[in-house]
Amino acid sequence: MSKKNKVNAAILIIGNEILSGRTQDKNVAFLSSWLNTNCGITVLEVRIIPDVEKTIIKNIRLLSKEFSYVFTTGGIGPTHDDITAKSIAKALKVKYGYHDEAYKILENYYGKEKFNDGRKKMAKMPKIAKLIYNPSSAAPGFITKNVFSLPGVPSILNSMIENCKKYLVKGLKVHSNTLNLYTVESNISNQLEILQKKYNKFVEIGSYPFFRLGKIGVSVVSRSTSKSKLMSVNKDLMKTIKVKKIKILKI
Amino acid sequence: MSKKNKVNAAILIIGNEILSGRTQDKNVAFLSSWLNTNCGITVLEVRIIPDVEKTIIKNIRLLSKEFSYVFTTGGIGPTHDDITAKSIAKALKVKYGYHDEAYKILENYYGKEKFNDGRKKMAKMPKIAKLIYNPSSAAPGFITKNVFSLPGVPSILNSMIENCKKYLVKGLKVHSNTLNLYTVESNISNQLEILQKKYNKFVEIGSYPFFRLGKIGVSVVSRSTSKSKLMSVNKDLMKTIKVKKIKILKI
Repeated sequence: MSKKNKVNAAILIIGNEILSGRTQDKNVAFLSSWLNTNCGITVLEVRIIPDVEKTIIKNIRLLSKEFSYVFTTGGIGPTHDDITAKSIAKALKVKYGYHDEAYKILENYYGKEKFNDGRKKMAKMPKIAKLIYNPSSAAPGFITKNVFSLPGVPSILNSMIENCKKYLVKGLKVHSNTLNLYTVESNISNQLEILQKKYNKFVEIGSYPFFRLGKIGVSVVSRSTSKSKLMSVNKDLMKTIKVKKIKILKI
Repeated sequence: MSKKNKVNAAILIIGNEILSGRTQDKNVAFLSSWLNTNCGITVLEVRIIPDVEKTIIKNIRLLSKEFSYVFTTGGIGPTHDDITAKSIAKALKVKYGYHDEAYKILENYYGKEKFNDGRKKMAKMPKIAKLIYNPSSAAPGFITKNVFSLPGVPSILNSMIENCKKYLVKGLKVHSNTLNLYTVESNISNQLEILQKKYNKFVEIGSYPFFRLGKIGVSVVSRSTSKSKLMSVNKDLMKTIKVKKIKILKI
């Protein structure tokens, strides 16, 4: 992979429901693809942690130092187990309290009478935060230094993500090329290794077995910030692994 | 949550395909549920990292010290990007090479003639490892000290997991109770907070909004190692949050 692609990110999934296996996470795949496709930002690490203040603080401090951006999901709702905002304020040592703009957005959305304590809590966050507007359910996400905080519900997160774009420094997009082959990994492992060594710093070649419609196959995925390098790998791949012996699936 | 439940684990998902968003992880939810239900082991952290030796080594060292067990998934196949076994050997400072029993299993499975380099590679692992037998595709997983290494393909992982059981010290199972309510979180947040404080150390109460068949609701999930405490919470919950105003979904 080209070393020019320096803009990276970590994702921090905060939530006992994901960690316990009760809920299947869908935000990692979405965020990771979106960040690469739209901003050229590569996700280099994901962590899933419980709703525990000490744990959130430790991870926010560590990840925000190590990566260009951190994206948190979950824990920004109205209930007692939503402690992301407070924990981030503590981790980054900034003031926590009602955010003027967030308060107005929520008060306006619910109306003064129905703006109860739970709803007010969603306006509490780091005071210095920039807001990530929420077209689905009003309660905004927020940006504290290089930490972007989004809700855990995938449909709401997805509706908000475009509003993060203007705050992100763009990197180089990683393009990918997939060849789906009717073979098994051990039949092509030597050739793939030689190819990986040849294109070492520019292209990352991965191979992933699949089972589809009762047939066994391998997806060979090449990834690079350079489209021309990807094309060269593809040509080499077709030559080297003797495609006449292998059917290429049209998908 | 009761402090007696001391047996815990971390999951380390190794694989660019998950991190890039190309492949949706399914192993976290499966492993986490299985470990709790079958062994009373609570997963306290998950990390998803790339196929990079330095990163794998760093994480294995850290997690194997911090948790009772570490479960790795991915990177134990026959290709150049499968570097889990070698990295674990380096991380735990044990010898790496052909594992006699694994070699025999694979040689027997493929037959001497078809036992090529790629396939032989799957017999290379920490020499001291205990094997996790694989009823699907022969290539075994392995246990090095407190680190359990499984493949990334969910169907194969699922078929192997029972073979881990005899090597695991059992903890206390966390039971859970879910109430699905037609309401929004902010309407019940005060009551939930009071209940959480009352049952502080014994029960963990979480609330999760859902959208189902066009209706908005909240799942209130109580989790505890004590079934009787769970029942008490449930009774309190029904009283406190004025169920007559709320329909309880029958699911």
